Amino acid sequence: MSGVLIGVGVGPGAPDLMTLRAVNTLRSADVIAIPRRSVYDESLAWRIAKDNVGEVPGQERLFLTFPMTKDPERLRPAWEEAYAQLAPRLAAGKKVAFITEGDPLVYSTFIYLLAEVPQRFPGTRTEVVPAVSSITAVPAAVQIPVADGQERIAVLPATYGVEDLTRVLRDFDTVLLMKVSSVMPQVVEALEREGLLDRAVYVSRASTGQEKVVRDLRSIRNDKCDYFSMVMVAKKDRSGVLAGRFAQTAEVAR
Amino acid sequence: MSGVLIGVGVGPGAPDLMTLRAVNTLRSADVIAIPRRSVYDESLAWRIAKDNVGEVPGQERLFLTFPMTKDPERLRPAWEEAYAQLAPRLAAGKKVAFITEGDPLVYSTFIYLLAEVPQRFPGTRTEVVPAVSSITAVPAAVQIPVADGQERIAVLPATYGVEDLTRVLRDFDTVLLMKVSSVMPQVVEALEREGLLDRAVYVSRASTGQEKVVRDLRSIRNDKCDYFSMVMVAKKDRSGVLAGRFAQTAEVAR
Repeated sequence: MSGVLIGVGVGPGAPDLMTLRAVNTLRSADVIAIPRRSVYDESLAWRIAKDNVGEVPGQERLFLTFPMTKDPERLRPAWEEAYAQLAPRLAAGKKVAFITEGDPLVYSTFIYLLAEVPQRFPGTRTEVVPAVSSITAVPAAVQIPVADGQERIAVLPATYGVEDLTRVLRDFDTVLLMKVSSVMPQVVEALEREGLLDRAVYVSRASTGQEKVVRDLRSIRNDKCDYFSMVMVAKKDRSGVLAGRFAQTAEVAR
Repeated sequence: MSGVLIGVGVGPGAPDLMTLRAVNTLRSADVIAIPRRSVYDESLAWRIAKDNVGEVPGQERLFLTFPMTKDPERLRPAWEEAYAQLAPRLAAGKKVAFITEGDPLVYSTFIYLLAEVPQRFPGTRTEVVPAVSSITAVPAAVQIPVADGQERIAVLPATYGVEDLTRVLRDFDTVLLMKVSSVMPQVVEALEREGLLDRAVYVSRASTGQEKVVRDLRSIRNDKCDYFSMVMVAKKDRSGVLAGRFAQTAEVAR
């Protein structure tokens, strides 16, 4: 008998941006595994999901703590504890749904867990329930197209220098900069040099009650930034139905 | 009195990958505007949505035909007809939900419509309901992470040459090549030269009953390709919890 481990994305923040499949998967799971940053953290992912799931008789809610740190001395014991909690449940044939904010395969804890399955939980079947990620939730919040026609998209975590960022800004039409809180000065500098500051918008906690949109990036101080933030840069040099480019781009209409 | 035009993404294909908000928005709309390629086309987006929406008394279903062509002589009249159909409904204060397969802001017809709103439908309020796009649905189908930790993602439509593609493959960790059907020979050539052919997978119609996954790209002939197809290339040079990089990447855990 072997269990199933399902990575379930609950979307960007608004509970009604969960998919029908995510809700159904969580309602039918034997165990909902809920990652949190500390024992004092309610878990954003669970806050998104819980009212949609409701009370399910006999269902276990298993909180797993993954501290927000780069220190392996603190991380490894946390992961070992998570493996130790999950292994007997999967070995007993249970259906374990591991929830993640956003999508399970975009910068999420589930990616690390999925990689461990063959060694840690042999025989376990895995599934992924994709979700609305910030890659589409942020553009929807500001109603700016991610890409039309022939446009190219780049998504970067905040690990770039100014030169590196400049090259990507030149090569791509739409650039999504994830988790920008620590690097706003570099971002503003690169955008300014490329003349793209007015094509950029800062969005944090898109789709939640705490959504914030800032269109003048110069006004952002570090204390206003948020871990769940993104800068979207849409150059829009090439697009526009009425800009004479319609004939070239309409092939992607669907 | 002014209406509201809502771009509603219905997701990648499986009806249960629609969001709760998409279903609720479509159920409460006065008009569901349904783009299709021809009068003989049932509309993939509507096929995804219709059973979730069901029969709504008094609701209008307005089919709009956008031919799959680059010929402006055929496209312009189709768009003029769409504007002519939508304008009186919006002017009458109706809530019009325009459905799109995937996400409304990722390579979709809604992008062109949204751009026309100020001129064509003055006073109309607009909204976007984001959806699961192929950017996360394809990775979920093959259970390959889009990006973890410090990884970078590029999404390109099929308009590149081999040199151009080679550069992107070198600069990014995960590359998603959209609508590859017309350019498979170039894709295979570039991947082969970069030694990445075994890191690439072809997926068409992810999440639908017609989903197809091909791991040996050399075996693909043009007649096997599909308009709704993607090649996902995941280099995975930098990732891995147990590969000693965990301490650097765990900061993105959530």
